[in-house]
Amino acid sequence: MRATVINGPKAISVEHVPDAEVRNPTDAVVRVTHACICGSDLWAYRGVAAREPGQRIGHEFLGVVDAVGAAVTGIRPGDRVVAPFVWADGVCDYCADGLYTSCPHGGFWGQPGSDGGQGEAVRVPFADATLVRLPDGTPDELLPAVLALSDVMGTGHHAAVSARVRPGGTVAVVGDGAVGLCGVLAARRIGAERIVVLGRHEARTDIARRFGATDVVPERGDAAVEAVRELTGGEGVHSVLEAVGTEDAMRTAISIARDGGAVGYVGVPHGGSAGVDIRQMFNRNIALGGGVAPVRAYLPELLADVLAGRLDPSPVFDLEIGLDETPKGYEEMDERRALKVMIKL
Amino acid sequence: MRATVINGPKAISVEHVPDAEVRNPTDAVVRVTHACICGSDLWAYRGVAAREPGQRIGHEFLGVVDAVGAAVTGIRPGDRVVAPFVWADGVCDYCADGLYTSCPHGGFWGQPGSDGGQGEAVRVPFADATLVRLPDGTPDELLPAVLALSDVMGTGHHAAVSARVRPGGTVAVVGDGAVGLCGVLAARRIGAERIVVLGRHEARTDIARRFGATDVVPERGDAAVEAVRELTGGEGVHSVLEAVGTEDAMRTAISIARDGGAVGYVGVPHGGSAGVDIRQMFNRNIALGGGVAPVRAYLPELLADVLAGRLDPSPVFDLEIGLDETPKGYEEMDERRALKVMIKL
Repeated sequence: MRATVINGPKAISVEHVPDAEVRNPTDAVVRVTHACICGSDLWAYRGVAAREPGQRIGHEFLGVVDAVGAAVTGIRPGDRVVAPFVWADGVCDYCADGLYTSCPHGGFWGQPGSDGGQGEAVRVPFADATLVRLPDGTPDELLPAVLALSDVMGTGHHAAVSARVRPGGTVAVVGDGAVGLCGVLAARRIGAERIVVLGRHEARTDIARRFGATDVVPERGDAAVEAVRELTGGEGVHSVLEAVGTEDAMRTAISIARDGGAVGYVGVPHGGSAGVDIRQMFNRNIALGGGVAPVRAYLPELLADVLAGRLDPSPVFDLEIGLDETPKGYEEMDERRALKVMIKL
Repeated sequence: MRATVINGPKAISVEHVPDAEVRNPTDAVVRVTHACICGSDLWAYRGVAAREPGQRIGHEFLGVVDAVGAAVTGIRPGDRVVAPFVWADGVCDYCADGLYTSCPHGGFWGQPGSDGGQGEAVRVPFADATLVRLPDGTPDELLPAVLALSDVMGTGHHAAVSARVRPGGTVAVVGDGAVGLCGVLAARRIGAERIVVLGRHEARTDIARRFGATDVVPERGDAAVEAVRELTGGEGVHSVLEAVGTEDAMRTAISIARDGGAVGYVGVPHGGSAGVDIRQMFNRNIALGGGVAPVRAYLPELLADVLAGRLDPSPVFDLEIGLDETPKGYEEMDERRALKVMIKL
């Protein structure tokens, strides 16, 4: 089969690799129909996150079940399924708590020895626990929105939950990337009254407005803090979603939270903790939560909303390509010409 | 009247100062019968926290109302009252949310222009909102326990709440000072099943055991992390109470939390954020909350438990002195010969 391989910084290619196949009784093989490129893939692409040469890449996909192991009971060949960005056993204490990302038997698509999402097929461990089956007859036009549930939308939702977004509350989202935009959508879905997005790319902030942002703050740093405070009577917002992962973004996030508020951070931290102003957090009782999103836990409720037409994150995909064009897709995202690339197979 | 004054590092004296008196219609004057010295007073004593020469000091007290302003309706002269360590107006949005420490009209006893708790009397702004009246006939022997509600016990409780302590959960408390010990008591009160205290002062860890600690870990740093993990099947605890305020303590606290757990920190941060391992927090979804404790919000429920005999933090007081001996009390605490000093007037 063919799959995307990362051989080094900026060295992405689509290559022939061994076919995905059932190895364990709990495995399934999924023939990928839709995959995408994540902002976090760019860290590997740029050489900031280390990868072994020849590692697969891509952790967001949906497709059709091709084969299942003998112990798989919940899905059958022919079922359409979506995968969260990590697999998990579904039976450990962490999975029971919904923290699938801490499953001791879990893993991340593309890690050495596993298939990545940006390929023709994927061997899925613990298929019953990992995959979520779509109802028969799910319309094709909803599939991009469903694909977004494999990571970005679930991650945006995790930011919102971690930031304790509540109906009627005020929210700020730091970052106008695909996760930040999904954070806007998540905050709106929970019922936030006011949603300020911090971003300066007009095409993206336009999507933010479609998603429910009430205000756009293009400033950065101290000027951004001042702008958000001005919009909120000097007080800041109840909930801040930090969807960038830099020290500056964290510093801004903490500074625009209202006393007693919470920051939910889902931007993979690149840098140290210098942006975590612990003294300010202490004096103003600002909480910090979040991390790698257990999107599997959120998939059922978000999927129900997508299927019912109440939730549509698909506008984050602004470029659609075929598998062969994947290297070009990385370039487009790296050079910020594309917000998020969907790969259709 | 006479009150404790700080004139510089290690320069604490009891001096004649202007009498406390009603200045605003919402003021009361409280004649102090019990006060105490806080671990955080030592930061001022040591010159680490800046004070203007001549500033008053002490922020924990209870006493008898001597006089009230014309607008005070809830308390009368002769009432016995306990004060939280900050005053607050009781009517702003923050006070309505229970975050009294963020009240824009609030203040801290001993700040320039105000009386401190370690003196014969205190002018109390917003007396109706700030003070909590004790029922007539409250037995004298309960007063030390009530005094602890003015700061340490409420602060320990805030750590427990911020660390999301829950019935049946596992808890670790970093620090065996008075606040850490009250954190143990708070965790026990909420119903934690296992409570590990990290401390190496036997007299203090003995109190921790009386308060409900099930395990004592005298190690520090990596050895402490290993010890707590060993006690918890390798996983760490659901809730960590950080009651020290150093970078090392924070680093330890985060490292001993279970994935998906929470750290509640109430140790005034001295140092920066270097101990906040944001990458570890991200990968393991560890939340961080806490800060300066809004003890006024907790006073009614904690007081009810003290009066009912269900809660007794008074063992944290291991030295009782008169007002004149206050400078000596600072020495005793600074040199760790006393855990917490009660001043009786």
